[in-house]
Amino acid sequence: MVVSIVGLGLIGGSMAMDLKAGNVFSNVYGVDNNSKHSEKALELGLVDDIISLNKSIEVSDLIILAIPVDAAKGVLLEILNRDDCPFVMDVGSTKGGIIEVVKNNLNRKKFVATHPMSGTENSGPGAAIVGLFKDKLAIICDEENSESAASKLVRDVYLELGSVITSMDSGEHDTSAAYVSHISHISSFALALTVLNTEKDKQNILKMASGGFRTTVRLANSNAKTWAPILIENKKNVLPVLDTYIEYMNELKSAIELNDEEGLKELMISANRVKRIIEQPK
Amino acid sequence: MVVSIVGLGLIGGSMAMDLKAGNVFSNVYGVDNNSKHSEKALELGLVDDIISLNKSIEVSDLIILAIPVDAAKGVLLEILNRDDCPFVMDVGSTKGGIIEVVKNNLNRKKFVATHPMSGTENSGPGAAIVGLFKDKLAIICDEENSESAASKLVRDVYLELGSVITSMDSGEHDTSAAYVSHISHISSFALALTVLNTEKDKQNILKMASGGFRTTVRLANSNAKTWAPILIENKKNVLPVLDTYIEYMNELKSAIELNDEEGLKELMISANRVKRIIEQPK
Repeated sequence: MVVSIVGLGLIGGSMAMDLKAGNVFSNVYGVDNNSKHSEKALELGLVDDIISLNKSIEVSDLIILAIPVDAAKGVLLEILNRDDCPFVMDVGSTKGGIIEVVKNNLNRKKFVATHPMSGTENSGPGAAIVGLFKDKLAIICDEENSESAASKLVRDVYLELGSVITSMDSGEHDTSAAYVSHISHISSFALALTVLNTEKDKQNILKMASGGFRTTVRLANSNAKTWAPILIENKKNVLPVLDTYIEYMNELKSAIELNDEEGLKELMISANRVKRIIEQPK
Repeated sequence: MVVSIVGLGLIGGSMAMDLKAGNVFSNVYGVDNNSKHSEKALELGLVDDIISLNKSIEVSDLIILAIPVDAAKGVLLEILNRDDCPFVMDVGSTKGGIIEVVKNNLNRKKFVATHPMSGTENSGPGAAIVGLFKDKLAIICDEENSESAASKLVRDVYLELGSVITSMDSGEHDTSAAYVSHISHISSFALALTVLNTEKDKQNILKMASGGFRTTVRLANSNAKTWAPILIENKKNVLPVLDTYIEYMNELKSAIELNDEEGLKELMISANRVKRIIEQPK
């Protein structure tokens, strides 16, 4: 079988590496309209060849869309609108939008909506790494709306990547993703902006940036082209979570302002319950 | 020489372990008014014995204060008010307050204000680990106000712990600490509270809590008794930084609300400059 991957960045490139080394596909092709990315992907040997989207529709059993969530919708429609379309899966971090856009498409069942919960804060083909998805969660959304052969092939892909596969309603996925992923990215971006935009003591700040700071701010290096569309697409869920977060920031701020040490401690002790989330087996 | 460590939690306990194994001191005593901590510290062999504060003043060449920043002020005064007081160092995360409280004390020069920038999100004697301070920054503040023998002994302590020693003005320290440490803790607490207080999709949130979330929220497990006094004591610096941070959160929120993808990308690209901070050699 043949797979084509549209978008050879961190996610697409890492998938290409593992699938090329695996047994499900005899050929792994890449499609990328960024010529620098295409060249880099070939140079790194991520794919067997770079082909056009049209060609990939003709030759593939499966096309994997690994481009930003807004761009993925258009390309998905372009593929599904062809009578002879192959199976298609996407890997976007929000699922409601792309599912909505194809819900009345005649070839809807050829599409499988997925979200592999893996990544690093780096981007581009050069950031691709072997084993990125190993032991990480791969979520398949609204699986009942895909034909069983499509769903099976996508599960084979994630099995080959070593992922832990789970099935979930797309609405529930998007709500939960706002909490565990989208809001951490926003808070990390804000933290970086705050530190970068002070004129005070730059040298000391550089010197003192220690472990706690580095880990909290790491996500602020995430790719704007990937993340801006995710947050806008999931705004229905992201905005209320953001409001709650800002309310808690103001509550913590107010306790500090009022020297309310007991109130501050209560909030912190309440936050400490997060231990049961971060210490659960991965 | 003899050292006594007041407060056998993560920081005090870890210092005790390294100093006990080292060559600067023949005896390492512990002082802790929490009897459970004292017992645990003895059981773990962190110190040679548990003694009273009074006794520690009599027998020690150096007393290390490793208790919350508010409590440290009182104990420091109690020690410095004794004619025969030994050298004293503290290890608190804010420096202006404790320096202010002793500035007119006759024994001010016996005191050395320090801040070792190491730690984990765990607390108590059971959290103590060997090598916690190795290769980490140890900041000595307003060193010119300590007598040179005191300063030299404290430097010997940090050399034995393997720290990278630097000297800094206490005011500059407190401003920079607000940016690189205090604000990350507050944002992490708020993130944890936001996630913990939703009733939505608890199971999916647990399932989906992945790498990015874990690292961002890790600091929310920090000890309330340590952190509430730090934030209140450094409120002069923390509050303006918090205001800037909340402004950026609102700016990011507004861009999402308005579907302003370009504006959002600009903010993110600006935040990406944090790379140069997180990628500098540790």
